[in-house]
Amino acid sequence: MAQQLEPIAKMVAQLSRLPGIGQKSAQRLAYHIISMPLEDVRELASAVYQGRKAIQYCQVCGNYATGETCSICENTRRHNGQICVVRDPRDVAAIERMRDFQGTYHVLHGTLSPMDGIGPEDIRIKELLSRLSDGAVKEVIIATNPDIEGEATASYIARLIKPMGLLVTRIAHGVPVGSDLEYADEITLAKAIEGRREM
Amino acid sequence: MAQQLEPIAKMVAQLSRLPGIGQKSAQRLAYHIISMPLEDVRELASAVYQGRKAIQYCQVCGNYATGETCSICENTRRHNGQICVVRDPRDVAAIERMRDFQGTYHVLHGTLSPMDGIGPEDIRIKELLSRLSDGAVKEVIIATNPDIEGEATASYIARLIKPMGLLVTRIAHGVPVGSDLEYADEITLAKAIEGRREM
Repeated sequence: MAQQLEPIAKMVAQLSRLPGIGQKSAQRLAYHIISMPLEDVRELASAVYQGRKAIQYCQVCGNYATGETCSICENTRRHNGQICVVRDPRDVAAIERMRDFQGTYHVLHGTLSPMDGIGPEDIRIKELLSRLSDGAVKEVIIATNPDIEGEATASYIARLIKPMGLLVTRIAHGVPVGSDLEYADEITLAKAIEGRREM
Repeated sequence: MAQQLEPIAKMVAQLSRLPGIGQKSAQRLAYHIISMPLEDVRELASAVYQGRKAIQYCQVCGNYATGETCSICENTRRHNGQICVVRDPRDVAAIERMRDFQGTYHVLHGTLSPMDGIGPEDIRIKELLSRLSDGAVKEVIIATNPDIEGEATASYIARLIKPMGLLVTRIAHGVPVGSDLEYADEITLAKAIEGRREM
């Protein structure tokens, strides 16, 4: 007997390509899927494929959208005087969960990383600049990650935009709320002290 | 904005129904899938659905099969004088990995569990008995799990088969090879001593 039937082996191979799913988990998932009613498996497969197919990028900001533009860009109650620049659509989702920010977004779809050969042409910087040309935008909030690539990208964009006379801000770095100082890394602590405010 | 686009929410809901995949992992998987090329997602979804669709149960032993009977039952070099009784098809796969057993299998698709309302009619015991009636089978090896349901199922089947004059055996319980006695549980240790052999 072949160690595993070909349809099962194929399913395991595909599942194990997903992040965080190793060979063992893929096998367990495949056996579970095979024990599921066919109709349920059809729904699962269809939610995955049709879901992927339905999602495109907003032509304005680059966020996930089901049409040409995303629901945030289409929402006339959002202030288009503020643009929050993030690396990818899940960062938009994270900021939206906060329910506090009323501006719009710009998704770069990456950050500058010379080591990986990712330069300014490879992320959506040109598209950001063209959005700034109509004079409606007053502030660009750069919310890339506080890591090397994120900081480099933030500085790069700030250098481009400042001469246009716009306010360019960077999200604050510091000790996370509810965390313990003792466990904060040195760079975060340094940033927290550097960014201190009068009480 | 809705917290999450409907196609993404649907994908997350479906993925989070899989065992070992919580809300967070499902979300991470969904975002990964959305960033994959459409063609790759089509292959993934198709491997899952077509894989499930291709698998049926062997009409003889109940193992996974791509046709009416499985490759083990069809293999004329397997001894049909020995039937190894297991709970489900992945137990067949586990024993086959050992590459040692040359007999055939019988998959019960469950074990007796009065607490869950699973009685003898709900698992493939009738089918096992009818396979024993032709006189070819000499030994039935019961390889259900060494837990309460597995033991109860083993005793039940043994009581039914012994009067037919067949050899009924149970796989040995004991300390796993390569493990440490210190960490073996008491029941396993007791079974290991009870099952001791002369050296």
